[in-house]
Amino acid sequence: MRNIKLLIEYDGTDFVGWQIQAVGRSVQGEITKVLDHVLQDHVNLIGSGRTDSGVHARGQVANFHTQSAMELGSIVAALNGLLPDDVCVGSAEEAPEEFHARFDARARTYRYYISPKPLSIGRQYHWYVKYSLDLGLMRETAGKILGDHDFESFSKREAEASHYRCTVVRSEWDATDGKLVYEVTANRFLHGMVRALVGTMVDVGRGYTPGPAFEGIMNAKDRAKAGMAAPSQGLFLERVQY
Amino acid sequence: MRNIKLLIEYDGTDFVGWQIQAVGRSVQGEITKVLDHVLQDHVNLIGSGRTDSGVHARGQVANFHTQSAMELGSIVAALNGLLPDDVCVGSAEEAPEEFHARFDARARTYRYYISPKPLSIGRQYHWYVKYSLDLGLMRETAGKILGDHDFESFSKREAEASHYRCTVVRSEWDATDGKLVYEVTANRFLHGMVRALVGTMVDVGRGYTPGPAFEGIMNAKDRAKAGMAAPSQGLFLERVQY
Repeated sequence: MRNIKLLIEYDGTDFVGWQIQAVGRSVQGEITKVLDHVLQDHVNLIGSGRTDSGVHARGQVANFHTQSAMELGSIVAALNGLLPDDVCVGSAEEAPEEFHARFDARARTYRYYISPKPLSIGRQYHWYVKYSLDLGLMRETAGKILGDHDFESFSKREAEASHYRCTVVRSEWDATDGKLVYEVTANRFLHGMVRALVGTMVDVGRGYTPGPAFEGIMNAKDRAKAGMAAPSQGLFLERVQY
Repeated sequence: MRNIKLLIEYDGTDFVGWQIQAVGRSVQGEITKVLDHVLQDHVNLIGSGRTDSGVHARGQVANFHTQSAMELGSIVAALNGLLPDDVCVGSAEEAPEEFHARFDARARTYRYYISPKPLSIGRQYHWYVKYSLDLGLMRETAGKILGDHDFESFSKREAEASHYRCTVVRSEWDATDGKLVYEVTANRFLHGMVRALVGTMVDVGRGYTPGPAFEGIMNAKDRAKAGMAAPSQGLFLERVQY
């Protein structure tokens, strides 16, 4: 049985998220529908992870098994021809039979984009923050999550989660083209974690939360101590490493 | 009487264009409505030029006269607070009483963005061209319009136009971030000119029109000889010089 790995890009604006829901357009649902039609199969599409409603992806990875003999290039062309224009496929490749897009992922990278001024072009992809932000302080705060920590303070309740520990290998703010970009790489992410981290770091950057309070928030293991979740439209699943 | 100059950004996707029309949302209409409300005035907003339906602007310039004493910073804040989110104002400044955004413009710069692969993020701002394009040939062709030429072959019929001559001082293709960007600066632009030029250069780049045929197309002064207009969503009014 072939196992095919897809690289997927989507604009999350009009999706309920990656995962198929009872109601609403999901990325997984749209791609599965087209694959079933094109391959005349009944495909189980496994994503590297869920993204929430409104969150974008430049480098989502998914895999599926199929008996179909269709060439990889034709699968990509058929998907891009038949998918709605807010989702597209960058590539398809043959993967080892046991490859699993979720369980085999070693690291995931997210980016979050902030605009310090109102914008109309690209407003779907940024959070406009009207407060003036201290980038130095935000960089310092971002550095505090590097390494192995418990992120319960930055996670929605997860019935399935056995623990809240994540290992963060990159956590950096950068300023480019008049925008602020936060990039974070970790072995795993909890539900709502990047948005809660960004919201809390913005609170620090604008002087609402004192910088030294951040460690206390992290150690509290209490979501109520952290800042508001940053809005979904600034968040991108950038890439997944295997 | 004060004369105020605005720098305006808009996402043209859901507009019928810059100019007020009998039916549909126009950028001029939306801004005028807010200005009239905020300044308790009856403002005549003069743009540097019209942009067509679907065309974006990063640097549209407009001016209006008013008796209002409202501070510039408050005008910007009020506009950005009350305008719909696909149009925003970058700045407002006092201009000499005789300043006219259209007549005083010395040069305008447009950019056109092409993506060589399907994209979902930013699809509102690019033309996806599936043919492989010869960038060298497109650069060579772009160079042929530099200087003073008659652009009737690249213009829609204009009842008002007394002549079709334009002076082009920059006309260049560039490849950045996996996208192709065309930038063109001229003293004036005819209706539909950039889109007709881009459509024709893409025909050359993909080998449909031979490169040497371009001069013949230009000299024919016949719109039917040039290529199709490139779609509006890739076009940006980048800046206006005075």
